[in-house]
Amino acid sequence: MAAARTLRIGLIPGDGIGREVIPAGRRILESLPSSLNLKFSFVDLDAGYETFQKTGTALPDKTVDTLKKECDGALFGAVSSPSTKVAGYSSPIVALRKKLDLYANVRPVKTTAGNSNGKPIDLVIVRENTEDLYVKEERTIEGPNGKVAEAIKRISEKASFRISNIAGEIALRRQNIRAASPTSTRDQPMVTITHKSNVLSQTDGLFRETARRALSAEKFSSVFVEEQIVDSMVYKLFRQPEFYDVIVAPNLYGDILSDGAAALVGSLGLVPSANVGDGFAIGEPCHGSAPDIEGKGISNPIATIRSVALMLEFLGEEKAAAQIYAAVDGNLDAAQFLTPDMGGKATTQQVLDDVLKRL
Amino acid sequence: MAAARTLRIGLIPGDGIGREVIPAGRRILESLPSSLNLKFSFVDLDAGYETFQKTGTALPDKTVDTLKKECDGALFGAVSSPSTKVAGYSSPIVALRKKLDLYANVRPVKTTAGNSNGKPIDLVIVRENTEDLYVKEERTIEGPNGKVAEAIKRISEKASFRISNIAGEIALRRQNIRAASPTSTRDQPMVTITHKSNVLSQTDGLFRETARRALSAEKFSSVFVEEQIVDSMVYKLFRQPEFYDVIVAPNLYGDILSDGAAALVGSLGLVPSANVGDGFAIGEPCHGSAPDIEGKGISNPIATIRSVALMLEFLGEEKAAAQIYAAVDGNLDAAQFLTPDMGGKATTQQVLDDVLKRL
Ligand SMILES: CC(C)[C@H](C(=O)O)[C@@H](O)C(=O)O
Ligand SMILES: CC(C)[C@H](C(=O)O)[C@@H](O)C(=O)O
Repeated sequence: MAAARTLRIGLIPGDGIGREVIPAGRRILESLPSSLNLKFSFVDLDAGYETFQKTGTALPDKTVDTLKKECDGALFGAVSSPSTKVAGYSSPIVALRKKLDLYANVRPVKTTAGNSNGKPIDLVIVRENTEDLYVKEERTIEGPNGKVAEAIKRISEKASFRISNIAGEIALRRQNIRAASPTSTRDQPMVTITHKSNVLSQTDGLFRETARRALSAEKFSSVFVEEQIVDSMVYKLFRQPEFYDVIVAPNLYGDILSDGAAALVGSLGLVPSANVGDGFAIGEPCHGSAPDIEGKGISNPIATIRSVALMLEFLGEEKAAAQIYAAVDGNLDAAQFLTPDMGGKATTQQVLDDVLKRL
Repeated sequence: MAAARTLRIGLIPGDGIGREVIPAGRRILESLPSSLNLKFSFVDLDAGYETFQKTGTALPDKTVDTLKKECDGALFGAVSSPSTKVAGYSSPIVALRKKLDLYANVRPVKTTAGNSNGKPIDLVIVRENTEDLYVKEERTIEGPNGKVAEAIKRISEKASFRISNIAGEIALRRQNIRAASPTSTRDQPMVTITHKSNVLSQTDGLFRETARRALSAEKFSSVFVEEQIVDSMVYKLFRQPEFYDVIVAPNLYGDILSDGAAALVGSLGLVPSANVGDGFAIGEPCHGSAPDIEGKGISNPIATIRSVALMLEFLGEEKAAAQIYAAVDGNLDAAQFLTPDMGGKATTQQVLDDVLKRL
């Protein structure tokens, strides 16, 4: 038997329920069947609002350095935002995405047999993760009629190309997985390019053109490419979500669309994400720090558990990922252990135990 | 009897089904009960992509001048966007909003007894209509790694204040109307401020602060004010739309949110809007030019008919508006004459006739 692959994983719980779900993610990794021949080591890392209050920075250099030098991947929980403006504070996850050049934010949204209102949804939002309004270049001028603030929205050909390329690759990979499933109804992979080029002809126009060019590569010849203006995309996402496969979007639209898509499956507590760069991935549940339920032991670990699988997928461990997804689907379909956000009464621990049992 | 008030209305059908629904809007105005003591005169005005192809401009000066000098209000249909970039073309409705300083885009979304999935929705999105990324100040640089394009997002204290102020006034007016209705369940007006100040601390931060200040005025003391980050707003809009009353947002978020809200009531063909300035209003259905159904005589005139009512409301004719809304509700609740987008088989003309009968 070949030597086990050992992956070193940074654990960044952050604030609030991040501290309840990240340990669940770690337990999943530790409990993977030995037949997968995978080993894990872990390093605990700080980030978040509490870290900011203690140390003056929300993202210590040590966290970034350790991830860069020692780790193969990481799990990020959630951070709370201060409710009013606090000088010097800025979101550590936005900074982390840029510092590690994690250029793709991948957010699959999927119903399972037990968790659907009839229409089976199985789509993924592939969000550009490094630019757009998230460059955070802002200034404020004191004018004759009061303050005027400006922010830069930056769209580059380079970032638009690589996000569209990975969106195409994800579409192909999904098609391969579907091809193996007898219940699949989609026969062609599809990528929908989202933009607002009818207003932003240069920035979103560049995104649109570049995405078209990236997706016209020979390797994507089997992929059906279409586009939607962002407002109409939100409308269609709600009217016919079952139509969509891969949706690629600039950073801010991707942020909005992925929360919208999460609403379709009933709870943000189900929706995973991965921040993906070349050879590195950070799994991150899409929900926030949820101060209202913090400390009650009832936060839904599913988003984190699925994020663990997603991270593994992008680290090349598709088989391990598939086993985790199947265990989660089993838990949801049985509907015996569900947290309150899903209408159940189970605790975080009970859901975790149920998933572990199915692994 | 007092002399009738005469209102002069510009009619700008634009492209596609705009030409089918604007005549329906005109017929409604012409058919208002004489007891309302209102008279109308009309002037036909050009704008849109076909106008651009004929004359080289999508919004002729004559249209703007006539609206400014002669008209009390207007109805705007829809315009088609070219499917690829066309030099010199830019959206006439965006330009019109700015040239006439129609600073508020008001988009009510409401279920009727017959048109609801159980949860009664009655909310209005009040969208800033003159700035944000819609200033369309863009540039493109040829860099070492390809093109980089930038756009300015501009948020001013002045525009943020007046949009928040009118949002507060709309909340109060809605509360007055509700107070007269025995079935109303909301006992306090509410305004939800939408922004993304956790990332855009200066621009969206200014919007948020200014909205808070505007809504803390004495006259709004009965209004409950809350806020939502835009991604979470989309999520909540879909999870608990019945919770919301007035949602105020910068231009682009308002654009996205109002299409999202339209999805909640089943068809964009139902959702009206008004572009409102001081003493002027343009009614505009939220749907587009719908090239797929153009010329078939089946476009839904309801969004336009409701936009007629909304325009009248902002021209001070609330009684006429209420009668039109009631006639539309009657048509929807009876569900006898519905266009195909609503699952029916009626033509534009049949729906119009049914609404006229109820007027
Ligand atoms: C917390 C916030 C900065 C973040 C974002 O906007 O990217 C969050 O909404 C997300 O989607 O991960
Ligand atoms: C056509 C387009 C420019 C317009 C906008 O973005 O404002 C439309 O989507 C709308 O909502 O009226």
